[in-house]
Amino acid sequence: MKEGQASILRDTVGLAQWVEFVGRSPMQDALPLLAQPEIISFALGLPSPELFPTEALSRACSDVLSGHPQALQYGVPSIALKSHIVSLMRSRGVECNERQIVLTCGAQQAVSLIVALLLDRRREVIAEEMCYPGFRQVVNFYQPEILEVPTDRETGMDVDRVEWLLKTGACPAFIYAIPNGHNPIGVNLSQEKRSKLLEVSRRYNVPIIEEDPYGFLSYEGGSETPLRAVSEDLVFYVGSFSKMIAPSLRLGWLIAPEKVTGYLAILKEASDIDTTTFAQHIVACMLESGFLWPHLRRLRAEYQRRRNVMLAALPGTFPRGSVWSIPRCGFFLWVRLPDEIDTTRLLKIAANEYRVAFMPGMAFCGNRDNKGARSSVRLNFSNPSESLIEEGMLRLGSMFGSHFGVASIGQK
Amino acid sequence: MKEGQASILRDTVGLAQWVEFVGRSPMQDALPLLAQPEIISFALGLPSPELFPTEALSRACSDVLSGHPQALQYGVPSIALKSHIVSLMRSRGVECNERQIVLTCGAQQAVSLIVALLLDRRREVIAEEMCYPGFRQVVNFYQPEILEVPTDRETGMDVDRVEWLLKTGACPAFIYAIPNGHNPIGVNLSQEKRSKLLEVSRRYNVPIIEEDPYGFLSYEGGSETPLRAVSEDLVFYVGSFSKMIAPSLRLGWLIAPEKVTGYLAILKEASDIDTTTFAQHIVACMLESGFLWPHLRRLRAEYQRRRNVMLAALPGTFPRGSVWSIPRCGFFLWVRLPDEIDTTRLLKIAANEYRVAFMPGMAFCGNRDNKGARSSVRLNFSNPSESLIEEGMLRLGSMFGSHFGVASIGQK
Repeated sequence: MKEGQASILRDTVGLAQWVEFVGRSPMQDALPLLAQPEIISFALGLPSPELFPTEALSRACSDVLSGHPQALQYGVPSIALKSHIVSLMRSRGVECNERQIVLTCGAQQAVSLIVALLLDRRREVIAEEMCYPGFRQVVNFYQPEILEVPTDRETGMDVDRVEWLLKTGACPAFIYAIPNGHNPIGVNLSQEKRSKLLEVSRRYNVPIIEEDPYGFLSYEGGSETPLRAVSEDLVFYVGSFSKMIAPSLRLGWLIAPEKVTGYLAILKEASDIDTTTFAQHIVACMLESGFLWPHLRRLRAEYQRRRNVMLAALPGTFPRGSVWSIPRCGFFLWVRLPDEIDTTRLLKIAANEYRVAFMPGMAFCGNRDNKGARSSVRLNFSNPSESLIEEGMLRLGSMFGSHFGVASIGQK
Repeated sequence: MKEGQASILRDTVGLAQWVEFVGRSPMQDALPLLAQPEIISFALGLPSPELFPTEALSRACSDVLSGHPQALQYGVPSIALKSHIVSLMRSRGVECNERQIVLTCGAQQAVSLIVALLLDRRREVIAEEMCYPGFRQVVNFYQPEILEVPTDRETGMDVDRVEWLLKTGACPAFIYAIPNGHNPIGVNLSQEKRSKLLEVSRRYNVPIIEEDPYGFLSYEGGSETPLRAVSEDLVFYVGSFSKMIAPSLRLGWLIAPEKVTGYLAILKEASDIDTTTFAQHIVACMLESGFLWPHLRRLRAEYQRRRNVMLAALPGTFPRGSVWSIPRCGFFLWVRLPDEIDTTRLLKIAANEYRVAFMPGMAFCGNRDNKGARSSVRLNFSNPSESLIEEGMLRLGSMFGSHFGVASIGQK
């Protein structure tokens, strides 16, 4: 939407000021390209449809509809479900209680409620240069100054830079982080940086929003312990069943200091009254049956296989000089190509001529001059099957072969 | 939450400014009273659980889970469902198209998105003195000046007062109205006032938010035609399946001028990504089967019976001098008692001693000195069965008998 257009609209129907500052995102621009037939897409962050627990879900639907008619009514948040979430979090080293949990319509609503609680219009926030676009969508509404810090592809957010910002007078409403299976970089925040980030948050009394939709999907060794395990009063944790069970249940949660959950409940009620009691009952019923742990083991094994297939294909696919890291959690692989390649333009060639798609780095970046973003791609390995990953990488490889000489071995 | 408390919290964890202005609502205060065992409640606005279409829902769940695995994935809004909504609206005399529809997490989210689109912080809005509390919750976040107009219990919103406000310089972001089955008054806006309201909205170029969750539940003659039928560019219509099928599906819609639906979609995505595709598929499947019209006939017949049982009991229950009107739509009956009765205090006696509950008028009113609200009650007739309505009215009658002399014939 061009600025002129927005002004005209405001004049006609009297819209709020924020619409003047809203533009289409590069991600939205990419969507029509992805909607073409026969495209193999590594672009979006979708779970695998073959791994949806349709049978368990179906059984839970029947049980709930026959045994719990109140699941169709408005209702107070399910204590049974909250108790299951307490146990889930304990398995990750987090001690919390039911009164600290607010059930939400997915992780996105949880972030949106926490931001509404903490952020006044035009305040500062700290986030990464390369950042989940849904977060920018939430905060843009408040027109804040986003103080950006870089992300290292092996160790995560540049916490020294966070410290420097705070030391030199920044006064952000919060620090936003995805410490596990970072979106889009795929990295886990290193242990050393976790400690440092928590220490800095404490020293400057700045809350952290810890978004963790992928935290239960780790591929090597155990899951990383969330920041919330260490800091109960300064970390707002956000979790979700979207990637563990199914996105369309729209069921997530946040864990907040107990003294502010009342405000979050007011915001939640104003937003949409309550989180679907039907989905709450279904998921509580599934968790009660002990379904989740074997299911998570299956997801981890399958997603790890898909990641490995993609990793194995990378050196023969991407041009010499490309670099990437091995994600130990989540849905994404980040590849940085040689600087001269503009991946936003490349996507058009890939989709139109080679029927394969990825998300260009610029979709995650607020600064149009960022060279790293401009020459990078985010690849999703959770949605396509192993054979589609192989075929898609072949297509990418022949594109690079035609447009950049023979595909060469990239450097790890 | 007292002001001092909010200030302390802001100092500790740095909350946004709006929390200073948030207080508990009388409705929230009433909830613990209602949660007591053996209470017959006329207090909340719940549909009847016996009338939930559990079987049709169950069948739709099976069909969707076996036939449409994509219903568990993230997804774009269902065109099939939007087409059904276009037909539903046409049955009410509204011509719209799929591009004007945004699917939402219930009517509440629809109102919340429209308010975010139209309202800048501290602007004015026009609403009724007696008003759905969920609306106040949404706008309070923007700290607007609410320009209040009275509601006549036979003809609805005082539109002359709306005109006067606009004529004398008010510049509201919108006018908020529930023209059918008003919550809490139960009244339908008269035809004459509808025409006047539309004319005034046009003359001063002020949009109307038409909230219509009860519009399909009319009890005598046909449904009233929504305002949206007459004004496509200035009326933002809000509908919901909560009262027609089940609240816990969290499925509603809004109809807006096509040129602004893009902004509403951005707000929606920022709030919670998308409206549960699972529920979208379930409801589309139910509507496809032709289930809705017979179901609506059944709901109307049953709710009309319950309303009639309650109306029949009123004269023998409420003290002399009480007045009410006959609702032709929706879930509520509004009774104004003699001025000396404070219904907020009365609720404690009713719930604690007589095990019967209603919603005191003050729950719907922003002004603590409003005598009409202070001495009124909202009675819900959709949730309790006919026999519970009879028993509950007997309990109310014996309370009035003990506390205000023998129950007397109220005046219609």
